[in-house]
Amino acid sequence: MCTRESFNPESYELDRSFWLTRFTEMKGTGWKVSQDVLQKLLKSLQVNHFQEDKQFLGAVMPRLDIRMDTCVIPLRHGGRSLVQTTDYIYPIVEEDPYMTGRIASANVLSDFYAVGVTKCDNMLMLLGVSNKMTDREGDKVMPLINQDFKDAAEEAGTSVTGGQTVLNPWIVLGGVATTVCQPSEFIMPDNTVPGDVLVLTKPLGTQVAVAVHQWLDIPEKWNKIKLVFTQEDIELAYQEAMMNMGRLNRTTSGSLLICLPLQQAAQFCAEIKSPKYGEGHQAWIIGIVEKGNCTARIIDKPGIIEVAPQVAPQNVNPTSGATS
Amino acid sequence: MCTRESFNPESYELDRSFWLTRFTEMKGTGWKVSQDVLQKLLKSLQVNHFQEDKQFLGAVMPRLDIRMDTCVIPLRHGGRSLVQTTDYIYPIVEEDPYMTGRIASANVLSDFYAVGVTKCDNMLMLLGVSNKMTDREGDKVMPLINQDFKDAAEEAGTSVTGGQTVLNPWIVLGGVATTVCQPSEFIMPDNTVPGDVLVLTKPLGTQVAVAVHQWLDIPEKWNKIKLVFTQEDIELAYQEAMMNMGRLNRTTSGSLLICLPLQQAAQFCAEIKSPKYGEGHQAWIIGIVEKGNCTARIIDKPGIIEVAPQVAPQNVNPTSGATS
Repeated sequence: MCTRESFNPESYELDRSFWLTRFTEMKGTGWKVSQDVLQKLLKSLQVNHFQEDKQFLGAVMPRLDIRMDTCVIPLRHGGRSLVQTTDYIYPIVEEDPYMTGRIASANVLSDFYAVGVTKCDNMLMLLGVSNKMTDREGDKVMPLINQDFKDAAEEAGTSVTGGQTVLNPWIVLGGVATTVCQPSEFIMPDNTVPGDVLVLTKPLGTQVAVAVHQWLDIPEKWNKIKLVFTQEDIELAYQEAMMNMGRLNRTTSGSLLICLPLQQAAQFCAEIKSPKYGEGHQAWIIGIVEKGNCTARIIDKPGIIEVAPQVAPQNVNPTSGATS
Repeated sequence: MCTRESFNPESYELDRSFWLTRFTEMKGTGWKVSQDVLQKLLKSLQVNHFQEDKQFLGAVMPRLDIRMDTCVIPLRHGGRSLVQTTDYIYPIVEEDPYMTGRIASANVLSDFYAVGVTKCDNMLMLLGVSNKMTDREGDKVMPLINQDFKDAAEEAGTSVTGGQTVLNPWIVLGGVATTVCQPSEFIMPDNTVPGDVLVLTKPLGTQVAVAVHQWLDIPEKWNKIKLVFTQEDIELAYQEAMMNMGRLNRTTSGSLLICLPLQQAAQFCAEIKSPKYGEGHQAWIIGIVEKGNCTARIIDKPGIIEVAPQVAPQNVNPTSGATS
């Protein structure tokens, strides 16, 4: 079940089914505010550009603000920009605190990679420890989450140097990624032209895979799907989802939707599979850029691309507790 | 009751006593994890200084990491440092969303001012909207909180350019402050010598004042204290506490404990009261630095310094609802 050899759920001395029940009490149930509410809230934060646009060698320095996931702020020091992103999640992976920390860390960094920034100067960690956790649970589970958050940050070439830890009903995991760089080190997401194609670099459906995996332990849910899926199907999909969520987006660049000219896109999809980029990642051309008013639409009959699993089936733990 | 002329609780069309009840359901009840738990959690985050100490013009650049409230990270770009802090709170001021946002903003920036940094290049906002809030409550209250968070940031000469908004059982307010500066623009908190005195720049007891103010609406609590305090005493203390929490720590430097040579300390306490620094702030010499092992202790019989209120009693709203 576990993708990290040294991790064993028993080593933190918590009975798995007990932890599953407890975790359900502590995890957030819906973390995103709806788009219209968010728009209303952000309205009061719209930036006054009271700081004049900064120039360097006669050129206006690019700026991205609250409308985007990552902000790019020209600094007082000639020619440098501050690039920052923050994100936090309520964990959705109930079994493995180690993977949970890794996913949270990758999630913070992913918005960075989306603007082409691969060098992170600093990370802060934001942690909410559930007030429903017993001391014993906290002592065993939270250090594992922290350790992996830190491991993933170090894998990305940065370190966690600060943060904030509070008590909260739900477990909260997140952080802040910051770098200082030159305009040549980031890509403003405004250069696409009609005819470019859209390339997706991680498969969709991870949240469905995680939800269905939870159903293994809920008889009335499991009974609804057990004629269609085997337990092994679900374990495999879950492992695949965990791997994808925990994979850093730096190599070219995980969960991204990239616009590229067709020729380059084909080359990119071929290159990303090469051993040079690690473990044989994949990317897929899934759409095309048309002239229009900056909206997106799904075509009437979209095709479904089956994604070959990267987890070998024999790694799936057959003892995981399905209830039939 | 309100320190901002344009703000009137009626303007957000919520009945005050109704809001008080609702707020109590949404506010965090205890946000700090205990010191020993925090130490355990941070142990797994201790920084590997895998990045070598950076040098500039032959001198090692100073670094502060996870042990402190603010981190100072030497950057790749010669001679500059990244200074960052993050903090979030569960609001404790139940009546005035405007003050709540201001306090959250000042709270983020205060750790910055504690290392002498007065210029903030960027702020991110971290916001948890209570999932117990109705749409109507959210529409009225959250924009006020945001607006004031932003106003206080702009007053500090910076702007809010990004952040993260999620649903959470408790309301969460906080942010991240970041600046890029030279070593001459910050003070490392390691230069005190025996004989220096400790100067405090905001009075203690704000949380007690806020808690006692909430007791005005809880008959069994109010009955316990009404022979000792008048309603006016409590309203005044509450207003004073709100003003102090919402005051930016830049002029000067709000809620700081500063070590200074005695002569300079006396001069500092005199100067901070002058009109040059705004509204007649105060500071008090409250202790002395002795040779020792970096621990702090309260003397056996500490004196109590009474703090003259800055809020004129006639500004206190006499209609606030005490239950006798």
